[in-house]
Amino acid sequence: MYRSHDCGELNASNINIEVTLAGWVQKSRDKGFMIWVDLRDRYGITQLIFDEKRTDKAVFEKAKSLGREFVIQVKGTVIERESKNANMATGDVEILVTELTVLNESHTPPFTIEDETDGGEDIRMKYRYLDIRRNPVKNNLLFRHKVSMEVRKYLSDQGFCDVETPYLIKSTPEGARDFVVPSRMNEGQFYALPQSPQTFKQLLMIGGMDKYFQIVKCFRDEDLRADRQPEFTQIDCEMAFVEQEDILDMFEGLTRHLLQEIKGVTVEKFPRITYDYAMKTYGNDKPDIRFEMKFGELNEVAKHKEFPVFNAAELVVGIAAPGCAAYTRKEIDALIDWVKRPQVGASGMVYVKCEADGTFKSSVDKFYDQEDLKNWAEATNAKAGDLILILSGNAHKVRTQLSALRMEVATRLGLRKSDEFAPLWVVDFPLLEWDEESGRYHAMHHPFTSPKPEDMALIDTDPGKVRANAYDMVLNGNEIGGGSIRIHDRDLQSRMFTLLGFTPEQAEAQFGFLMSAFQYGAPPHGGLAFGLDRLVAILGGQETIRDFIAFPKNNSGRDVMIDAPSTIDESQLQELHIKLR
Amino acid sequence: MYRSHDCGELNASNINIEVTLAGWVQKSRDKGFMIWVDLRDRYGITQLIFDEKRTDKAVFEKAKSLGREFVIQVKGTVIERESKNANMATGDVEILVTELTVLNESHTPPFTIEDETDGGEDIRMKYRYLDIRRNPVKNNLLFRHKVSMEVRKYLSDQGFCDVETPYLIKSTPEGARDFVVPSRMNEGQFYALPQSPQTFKQLLMIGGMDKYFQIVKCFRDEDLRADRQPEFTQIDCEMAFVEQEDILDMFEGLTRHLLQEIKGVTVEKFPRITYDYAMKTYGNDKPDIRFEMKFGELNEVAKHKEFPVFNAAELVVGIAAPGCAAYTRKEIDALIDWVKRPQVGASGMVYVKCEADGTFKSSVDKFYDQEDLKNWAEATNAKAGDLILILSGNAHKVRTQLSALRMEVATRLGLRKSDEFAPLWVVDFPLLEWDEESGRYHAMHHPFTSPKPEDMALIDTDPGKVRANAYDMVLNGNEIGGGSIRIHDRDLQSRMFTLLGFTPEQAEAQFGFLMSAFQYGAPPHGGLAFGLDRLVAILGGQETIRDFIAFPKNNSGRDVMIDAPSTIDESQLQELHIKLR
Repeated sequence: MYRSHDCGELNASNINIEVTLAGWVQKSRDKGFMIWVDLRDRYGITQLIFDEKRTDKAVFEKAKSLGREFVIQVKGTVIERESKNANMATGDVEILVTELTVLNESHTPPFTIEDETDGGEDIRMKYRYLDIRRNPVKNNLLFRHKVSMEVRKYLSDQGFCDVETPYLIKSTPEGARDFVVPSRMNEGQFYALPQSPQTFKQLLMIGGMDKYFQIVKCFRDEDLRADRQPEFTQIDCEMAFVEQEDILDMFEGLTRHLLQEIKGVTVEKFPRITYDYAMKTYGNDKPDIRFEMKFGELNEVAKHKEFPVFNAAELVVGIAAPGCAAYTRKEIDALIDWVKRPQVGASGMVYVKCEADGTFKSSVDKFYDQEDLKNWAEATNAKAGDLILILSGNAHKVRTQLSALRMEVATRLGLRKSDEFAPLWVVDFPLLEWDEESGRYHAMHHPFTSPKPEDMALIDTDPGKVRANAYDMVLNGNEIGGGSIRIHDRDLQSRMFTLLGFTPEQAEAQFGFLMSAFQYGAPPHGGLAFGLDRLVAILGGQETIRDFIAFPKNNSGRDVMIDAPSTIDESQLQELHIKLR
Repeated sequence: MYRSHDCGELNASNINIEVTLAGWVQKSRDKGFMIWVDLRDRYGITQLIFDEKRTDKAVFEKAKSLGREFVIQVKGTVIERESKNANMATGDVEILVTELTVLNESHTPPFTIEDETDGGEDIRMKYRYLDIRRNPVKNNLLFRHKVSMEVRKYLSDQGFCDVETPYLIKSTPEGARDFVVPSRMNEGQFYALPQSPQTFKQLLMIGGMDKYFQIVKCFRDEDLRADRQPEFTQIDCEMAFVEQEDILDMFEGLTRHLLQEIKGVTVEKFPRITYDYAMKTYGNDKPDIRFEMKFGELNEVAKHKEFPVFNAAELVVGIAAPGCAAYTRKEIDALIDWVKRPQVGASGMVYVKCEADGTFKSSVDKFYDQEDLKNWAEATNAKAGDLILILSGNAHKVRTQLSALRMEVATRLGLRKSDEFAPLWVVDFPLLEWDEESGRYHAMHHPFTSPKPEDMALIDTDPGKVRANAYDMVLNGNEIGGGSIRIHDRDLQSRMFTLLGFTPEQAEAQFGFLMSAFQYGAPPHGGLAFGLDRLVAILGGQETIRDFIAFPKNNSGRDVMIDAPSTIDESQLQELHIKLR
């Protein structure tokens, strides 16, 4: 062992003992007669001192040559520091060094290894191994480990069995695009990397393994939007002999446990809202409920006057920005500009100031009287001091726009607090969504999701109205998990494939094994999957998943550190029976 | 929830309570007036009873229609069984059923779902989801979960951080063949699936994460020998600021913990033997030391007479089969036939019976006297009653042959007990091995393994003699883990690549990122990886890893259940910029 202690553990109680430390030179200060070196490892920083008077001359000279990020080993005595640093765990002591060994030298790093670095994203990714030495990145990785361990412990204690499902599976083009792997031993054939272990976990349920989980890498070859990764990690879970309520209870329990154990936050029973309610009340299906500003629909109280904009609109809807009645004209104009940005796309915004004296002042005073505005305040739950912001237009579009505005206002008001956690369930998702481009229905969740029995009658007459036994867990405005009760009946599954545009031959070729399995005693089952990258980021009080992944890829799917993907040898292509186009 | 209890938990203490159970019909016996059904789930079997007198007529009739593997839900009362079954946890009770719901029917399964099944390997793999319902397979998966959890807990408690490394990496043809993944977004380029996270864990050490582990899938596109899988699971570990001794201690601790916690077996400090000693004493580098039969080299005491076979041999070497002096001529001939099989390849075998009276009787009595045979008995540590088996020939070949014979004899004598565990370390492996075919050295472990400092002088003069800081953990005749202290110096790594036949350009193209990282303060580090599939199988007292993998592939790398690999659409090939040859 190269060390007797790590760089985070020595304190006043260790004074006068002999220690051996090893780590990296964080920085050194050379005062001529005295050299201080901050020695860093995973656990902290300990100050070393080399003193012209007390240190052997050769050691002292060697200390002069130490550069940033040199790896060194020192032996010495723990002594009390003259000027203590209360901000450091080891701030009461320093090591008077007697022996110094340089274990490895270092070039000057391309960016500073500090909490606040001068390195941009690109350079930090290229030298990710140096970036990981920085506390923010290192702590994120340690945090991720802690979350994974808690998840495993909790689920294992609940009787879940961690089963590893295969990575080399079969391509099923429904859903996102697969990554494929040419087979050398089976000419002209390909494996696919799993987009999720969905069918395997269902087969495990059919196999009687009634509670399954796995923390598992999944793969999607999609054009990468910001903060998406081609490989990502799921906490994948499935249970048999359960109804939706059992699954919600179980994974609400897991999430509550994580919040308690990891963040020390106690959360009561999660609110459960329907998809329809979420869309109407928050304009999206993953509402951030750390703050109010619920939508107030104003059609009934705003379309009775001569204001043509509202009268022409399918939906007039507003939110009450708390305490914003005092906004200046300039501040309000900034918000109007914001909603008019192409990314949001509103054509304008009406506002109402709810004054402290109970009166209202609006941008449409010419059309509406105080009584009208009072009705609007009631509908949006606005109180004195609030500012009502109103959008109008096509119902679907205006909800999306107001949802964006709601989040923006909350951000500006500091209401999206990273140490507050407001989880909820969104349930009763539609089974299908109509895709204009392909002119057919797509599964909103996936083709294995079961319709609600009470909506089955609609499946032939009005499929778009059928609700699914599907649910999402939402935390702070992010979908962190989602799942469904699955179909376990061959005929219903077959019907679903037909609805989704599969020919019977396609269904058989791609999912024949599952339909066959349904014929041998498939139990009722369901489950869900959490996105671990996002869950960890949100629990960590951040929103960028890349910061919680050790070696992430960039937006072109490249690992810029190892320079992958890359070309391969012609001989490899030959063996795989493929060639480049 | 479809059940109030599971099928393994009800006993006499539950008599008279109302319960709801759900599961599969294991079997039913219809006596006309009485029907018994064994209901099975993951946790056990509970007997249901339908009685013409006590059961509602409609329920009774429905019970008649139940077939094997139907999924049912029943409500009923726990009653005392008339004829108890002490072999079953639930054997004191049965359920007098009042309500019966068929949740799903089942075709007759293609093989019996019993501990001893009539299904062959192929059919069980095709219907693996049915195979998993069988106790032996189910219990193996539960056992694997238990081992993984213990590994994670132990390493986490020791301060190891579980870091997920990427699956889409870069192809590096050194070593085994890579599986590759064409990149859609980077035309003409490919990712590779990792053969191990080797370089990433080294980068984590350079990143300061000083204790890393991961239970991770790895991939090798090799022609599959029996019991190899194209995807397999490693417990992958690495530590920084450590020497070989620290690593051996740490992972000996882990293994001892597993044996204690999982098997209740207490193991003392693991023996450590060198590679050279293992080869000389057991004829291979993964000796099974649950039993003795160490090799006795006989050159000095067997080449002084006129027996031409021994005199012409490079090595004469024997083992003492304990208690086998009474073997009949027929039994001995069977052993001789065995060693002459092409798979072993010996040309013959000499034997010596060590009689109870201290005399010896051998197949070469015409050449050797009692004094000679006594010397052989001493060299092979044979006692009265033992049978000495002697092979001769080329040293390397004869060791391999005798090693095979030693294992065969142990198997015949029942010395390879599945509930006995004899772990050891084999250390001081050679750094390089000469490959006749390519006419160059290959890395015996991998190119990142560091030579022993004391052997560095040989690296230019006699590279084959250089020993590595490399070690294997061996358990019951299987290598269950292996690792090394790594190179952390750019120049030495560069020299190693040259020795292995890389041009500087190839080294830079494939491993430039690692060599670059060595220049920014790489600490001394090393680690090891366990093969989880094999470790679990051996701990489980078995040797076939396939039995401990939920969804294994066959020897052609096919998943016969889902029928993968398979052809993909032309449009997929186009998007990936490749075509079939």
